[in-house]
Amino acid sequence: MSIKSRLDAELRTQALLAGGVELLAWDQEVCMPPAGVQGRASLIGVLATLVHQRVVETILPLLREAESDPNLDPETQAEIRILLEDAEMIEKLPADLVRALSEAASLAQQAWAQARHQSDFDSFRPHLEKLVHLSREKAAALGYTQEPYEALLRLYERSTNPQQVEAIFAELRPFLIETVRLCQANPVSGLEGVSLSLSASDQRSLIREVVSRLGYDLNRGRIDESNHPFCTGINPDDVRITVRIYEDDLTMALGSALHEMGHALYEQGLPREPLGWPRTHSASLSVHESQSRFWENHIGASLGFWTFLYQKVLPAYQPAWLDEYSPLTLTRRVNRIQPGLIRIQSDEVSYHLHILLRFELERALINGDLSVRDLPAAWNEKVKAYLGLTVPNDAQGVLQDIHWSMGSFGYFPTYSLGSLLAAQLAESLTQTYPDWEDQLREGDGSLPLHWMREHIHQYGGRYRMQELCEKATGAPLSPKPFIRYIQRKAAQLYEGLAIPA
Amino acid sequence: MSIKSRLDAELRTQALLAGGVELLAWDQEVCMPPAGVQGRASLIGVLATLVHQRVVETILPLLREAESDPNLDPETQAEIRILLEDAEMIEKLPADLVRALSEAASLAQQAWAQARHQSDFDSFRPHLEKLVHLSREKAAALGYTQEPYEALLRLYERSTNPQQVEAIFAELRPFLIETVRLCQANPVSGLEGVSLSLSASDQRSLIREVVSRLGYDLNRGRIDESNHPFCTGINPDDVRITVRIYEDDLTMALGSALHEMGHALYEQGLPREPLGWPRTHSASLSVHESQSRFWENHIGASLGFWTFLYQKVLPAYQPAWLDEYSPLTLTRRVNRIQPGLIRIQSDEVSYHLHILLRFELERALINGDLSVRDLPAAWNEKVKAYLGLTVPNDAQGVLQDIHWSMGSFGYFPTYSLGSLLAAQLAESLTQTYPDWEDQLREGDGSLPLHWMREHIHQYGGRYRMQELCEKATGAPLSPKPFIRYIQRKAAQLYEGLAIPA
Repeated sequence: MSIKSRLDAELRTQALLAGGVELLAWDQEVCMPPAGVQGRASLIGVLATLVHQRVVETILPLLREAESDPNLDPETQAEIRILLEDAEMIEKLPADLVRALSEAASLAQQAWAQARHQSDFDSFRPHLEKLVHLSREKAAALGYTQEPYEALLRLYERSTNPQQVEAIFAELRPFLIETVRLCQANPVSGLEGVSLSLSASDQRSLIREVVSRLGYDLNRGRIDESNHPFCTGINPDDVRITVRIYEDDLTMALGSALHEMGHALYEQGLPREPLGWPRTHSASLSVHESQSRFWENHIGASLGFWTFLYQKVLPAYQPAWLDEYSPLTLTRRVNRIQPGLIRIQSDEVSYHLHILLRFELERALINGDLSVRDLPAAWNEKVKAYLGLTVPNDAQGVLQDIHWSMGSFGYFPTYSLGSLLAAQLAESLTQTYPDWEDQLREGDGSLPLHWMREHIHQYGGRYRMQELCEKATGAPLSPKPFIRYIQRKAAQLYEGLAIPA
Repeated sequence: MSIKSRLDAELRTQALLAGGVELLAWDQEVCMPPAGVQGRASLIGVLATLVHQRVVETILPLLREAESDPNLDPETQAEIRILLEDAEMIEKLPADLVRALSEAASLAQQAWAQARHQSDFDSFRPHLEKLVHLSREKAAALGYTQEPYEALLRLYERSTNPQQVEAIFAELRPFLIETVRLCQANPVSGLEGVSLSLSASDQRSLIREVVSRLGYDLNRGRIDESNHPFCTGINPDDVRITVRIYEDDLTMALGSALHEMGHALYEQGLPREPLGWPRTHSASLSVHESQSRFWENHIGASLGFWTFLYQKVLPAYQPAWLDEYSPLTLTRRVNRIQPGLIRIQSDEVSYHLHILLRFELERALINGDLSVRDLPAAWNEKVKAYLGLTVPNDAQGVLQDIHWSMGSFGYFPTYSLGSLLAAQLAESLTQTYPDWEDQLREGDGSLPLHWMREHIHQYGGRYRMQELCEKATGAPLSPKPFIRYIQRKAAQLYEGLAIPA
């Protein structure tokens, strides 16, 4: 067999196994009976170890052999370089360290859940200290040029580094703070009484209708309910999302459904073949987040979308709303800018201040500039400085996110990078199809999806995020499109409010 | 590491992976979106190949090393002999043949579904011919002493052979035919008008209540709905069942729920450790079926159970039934003996005639005594001879079961062996706890479960079926307890009807 055929077969097997791990995790959240947790952890551990071993022992040698094969075409060679870069990163991690991190994270997650429940940071502190310690070892094993945090950030987003993220936030921060200040000083009246409560069964049905109309293929997907909404891509023909329904507010479940649907449209839009090669999987967490944020915010919080909803969907569910509210009122309600303590409940502007403070704190923790002991005070100080809020307890402060308890340092920035990319993609989309929002208003959401399929989905992981961004938008990733997007929104929804860039 | 520790680790991994395959199959039936079928087949194929490879390349050499290790205790040596016997059987199957069979079965199942739909045996015939041909190759690879069919039967039930099965049926057949004849000649009056229709949501709730009360732990299980009810044991802490609900007849879903619950109680009752060793998995298909049949028939079709249901459960669902029917009437309804064309709808007596004819036909096919071309006529002839019925078309005849389209020749006899074992276990249970049915009448089903836990479940696959039967009941497997059980039932439910053995 040629080197190409052997790689084809091994990469295919690897992709199938990775899809299996995804399914096991999905089942754990959606179906698994409570007592199954220990057996499931062992099974996922076995498969994850197997997938890791296969990279190091089987795939990496093949890639190294292929790298120097002159018979391969340039396109294949380019994909092999991407695969090599990823596989060599995995090779650098000693199996003992991976196991130690996995075990520590497993214990830490339990401790975190309890600590958050009791708002007791001290009981979580030793676990976090251990995870920071092991993550610093991980950074050392991976290697870096400037600072340990760089190595961890690159695990989640290859084509960036802490200095770039810092520069982006430096440009963004004053704008975010000023926008929040101005919007709070100029509240839109008439939103207090808006109530969008809807029965759970109606919400389920409405969400199915809306995501189907926007292009999510339920023949290749399904919608369930879970505590924390998520999307699971097992393969392009089996991409599942979950929602969480709050009967007193339709916009909660709808917003998160559109977010997860954004992830799902990406996964459903990936090429099927050649399975396991970069172009059949997503490019990165940031690119994934650009898709979810695009559908959640640029579509789902737009006046066009709410006009469509108002005219075509809501009449079947709550005709009374048509008399009480206008599409503009509903859109304004969804877009209220109001800083809060909890990241996942925050509006799309103050959201980035939440990410910024986490980025700064985790960077300091990993680089050795902040001790875990001093973390809660540092957290509270930054919340005060960026959001103007006083943190009443650690449950609503430093203990609110699961990420650090999983040892996921370097993950948070991908949320902001993804949002910024979404805004940049949306600007290019508008250049290609100036009237996409008009069409959306009429219930046709096909133009945005078509654009994303063509500029993002079809390439899968063939290009790194930065290269993909340039290819799709003609420019490197920048916070400017996001700033312009928020300025337009403020003018539209905050009664002509002008926000300086 | 000692040979024992290495075996412990490899067998554990193997059991976890096997549980993963079970979950993938469960998800395919219960959750997977329609388009996922191709990707799922590939994934299951990858994992099944891996599991197979690990047996041959990793586990078998360890077992052979351990077999001659004088430091191992006799109990461990006994389990190693069981593992060796199974692993050597797997080793005998050439990978090419396994793949050819799997591919042929995959195509045959599609062809079978269509052929059954159109009642067109001829379109299925070439597929069945191919499967018979490959199965004969399989039998040759496995080896046998008397006839090719022996090798296939042993794949599903190690501790039997075609001659034993034939002898059992020889004893059983006249009794079955005579029972069916007598019961039809002496029908119980007053059952025609009995209607047990109940809404799907009430049936779901009633089934949850009943199986919980009988000992199925929903903290370690779950109940879903699927076209064909089944039970999936992923590990003892995650054992799932499915039901299919027919709103016009509660007894359909309830009976199959109790059947699947019987399988599930066995899986939930298996020892957790040492994972992967014989005692942590079930003994065989026949033993499994003894458990499902025991709870479906000996419990679920007993007057004690229906008295309990009548007094403690039905009042909350259909109080009207209490005035209209008596527990005896309901029990009689469930136990109607009435031969029909379809195996899975048949009563517990004529069921074995269905199995007998399949056993005889598949044995003849595999041994070369019957051609596939002559199969439909042979089928129809036997249905006439054993059940007194005329087959109107192949859909209701030779095409009704999925088994042969999966290449599962030798599977059917385990259904009858399991039923006979259930009756034999029930007799021993009654010797130990003469008043178990009285207690069941009061809603306490703990004695049968306790007995099964002690005599069957705790041993897992430590003993083969025949040995386990002797250990649990003091005698080899025999059709006599089943005959006595049916005689008692006829006397109780068919107004004193006496059936000669």
